[in-house]
Amino acid sequence: MPMKIYFSGSISGGRAHEAIYQHLVARLQAQGHDVLSAHVADPIALEAEKDMPPRDIFERDVNWVKECEAMIAEVSTPSLGVGYEYALAVQLGKPVLCVYRSGLRLSKMITGNSAPNLTVAVYASETELDEQVDAFIAKLTC
Amino acid sequence: MPMKIYFSGSISGGRAHEAIYQHLVARLQAQGHDVLSAHVADPIALEAEKDMPPRDIFERDVNWVKECEAMIAEVSTPSLGVGYEYALAVQLGKPVLCVYRSGLRLSKMITGNSAPNLTVAVYASETELDEQVDAFIAKLTC
Repeated sequence: MPMKIYFSGSISGGRAHEAIYQHLVARLQAQGHDVLSAHVADPIALEAEKDMPPRDIFERDVNWVKECEAMIAEVSTPSLGVGYEYALAVQLGKPVLCVYRSGLRLSKMITGNSAPNLTVAVYASETELDEQVDAFIAKLTC
Repeated sequence: MPMKIYFSGSISGGRAHEAIYQHLVARLQAQGHDVLSAHVADPIALEAEKDMPPRDIFERDVNWVKECEAMIAEVSTPSLGVGYEYALAVQLGKPVLCVYRSGLRLSKMITGNSAPNLTVAVYASETELDEQVDAFIAKLTC
């Protein structure tokens, strides 16, 4: 069943994992999901909103977090914005999946969070990432 | 008047600004404030808690955020943990000061947040940082 998904990924914090963001968002869209924040994976869309007032971006993104049915956050790159959005979504009771590339050191403010609506998963390959995302979504829609 | 202050700085996200964390925390302590999370500035204390269960660290830090009278977050280094703590403190209505070194690109999830209990300030020198911190605390205690 198609869902409204908020995708969270680093913007100002660095774009080292942009290719994985693009893969993840394109795959969710191909499955029919509505990725509210698909622009996070799209450098052209990000460039286009560079001159938008920060307050407008903040409010749009917060409203999307409130509106979404689930959040998928790619947390391989340390990011204040992703940390903020993840905190907000968990606090709102949204189902949240945090995925990160194996071998990286992840904040204990994620690994130590035992909120029942939070899933933290590690991946070593794109296939493993896809499996983690599919398992997360399958649980929500069954 | 001495206050309970939560200091938030990057740990897993990188320690490039550790010297500024140390300066900031030592100065607050010299002014008589109780810096609940002083260990964030102390590499020996951080090393000592490396083997603590992540859940214990998460719960201790979240309790300190709830207990503090104000948060000072040094946000020059992108960090998921700082983003989480800043979100929590703002949402709890704590007075929060986010300070960052001028010339760095800061997340719009901070610069775009118009919460009345949030102050965002930039500094170009240690003296300017000290002035920003003093002004923030003076407003709280007057």
